[in-house]
Amino acid sequence: MNKGRLIVFSAPSGCGKGTMLAEILKDESFRCSISATTRKPREGEADGVNYYFITNEEFEQKLSEDAFLEHAGYCDHYYGTLKSEVDPYLEKGINVILEIEVQGAMKVRKLRPDALFVFIAPPSVNELRRRLHKRGTESEEVIEQRVAAAHEELTYADKYDYVIVNDALEDAVSDFFAVVRAEQLTVKAQSEFIDEVIKNA
Amino acid sequence: MNKGRLIVFSAPSGCGKGTMLAEILKDESFRCSISATTRKPREGEADGVNYYFITNEEFEQKLSEDAFLEHAGYCDHYYGTLKSEVDPYLEKGINVILEIEVQGAMKVRKLRPDALFVFIAPPSVNELRRRLHKRGTESEEVIEQRVAAAHEELTYADKYDYVIVNDALEDAVSDFFAVVRAEQLTVKAQSEFIDEVIKNA
Repeated sequence: MNKGRLIVFSAPSGCGKGTMLAEILKDESFRCSISATTRKPREGEADGVNYYFITNEEFEQKLSEDAFLEHAGYCDHYYGTLKSEVDPYLEKGINVILEIEVQGAMKVRKLRPDALFVFIAPPSVNELRRRLHKRGTESEEVIEQRVAAAHEELTYADKYDYVIVNDALEDAVSDFFAVVRAEQLTVKAQSEFIDEVIKNA
Repeated sequence: MNKGRLIVFSAPSGCGKGTMLAEILKDESFRCSISATTRKPREGEADGVNYYFITNEEFEQKLSEDAFLEHAGYCDHYYGTLKSEVDPYLEKGINVILEIEVQGAMKVRKLRPDALFVFIAPPSVNELRRRLHKRGTESEEVIEQRVAAAHEELTYADKYDYVIVNDALEDAVSDFFAVVRAEQLTVKAQSEFIDEVIKNA
């Protein structure tokens, strides 16, 4: 059985990342890693679903045990990806998606050069602005902050392996699966198979 | 409009290359390059379909005009890929498939490093032998010659970009399309798009 692939998945806000992931996760050979955090659950968030909600002491204990693949602190809280959320699943042939922002992705790039880096982009910044307006949940000011953040994140797109434009959801999801499949067919990924075929002739 | 991709497609005899290509060519964004040759047409072969059948003088004239992407001589005959079979189609956004054997592929690798190199492999050499037997068109001796040739060709698989196993036709064709699509999504292929999105923010 082939091992699963660690997939780093980043997208600026408004790129339809959540909808894409929901579609992708219908395929049982994929799962999203659940992060651990010391912040309190917000309304509607459940432990073990959105995050593992743990105490500062627990977080620091796990840090001392080298249990995290990566971690960071934001606004007085810790956030981290537990290795136990990743490696046991890869061993079982499951592809594990880390949904993280660009800075975290760059850290993982150094730690796990074997990971696949996929960036989801909007068709254009204007389209992103239009989508955020359409949601109607944020003020003009917040929308412009998000647009500026997206613009900043887009400057990291060239540090990824693949860039998928989420224009039509179905196409973007199919592009994602194409990328993962193609990666299983690279000569590097197939080298063991090639050796076997030649040897067992 | 995006340019098409030059795709070098090689497979040992018995790997179902012909059936795969027939399926792939149902997609109008793909075409197979037709080679020119100085050998005489065999029964059932038509000029401009299987080959362009030309005279030695015509071939040498075209050679002197640098009209070939690659060419080779076998058994007193010339075979070659005309540039006019490739570049005008790439410009129109058509992916051009060169169905050539491993030696020719290695020449194209040097001439056209931008090309995509896809190797089609059998699930195993024994399976290849079984398929050649099943055809029932060749003697035991010819089958073993073909198996030996396939084994030799397989040692070149690691010089390609992707290796697709043709076990089930439908899966192999879908793998081929996944590879071509993924190549359109690499950060390199998307760099112009990324620059545009960032600039037009």
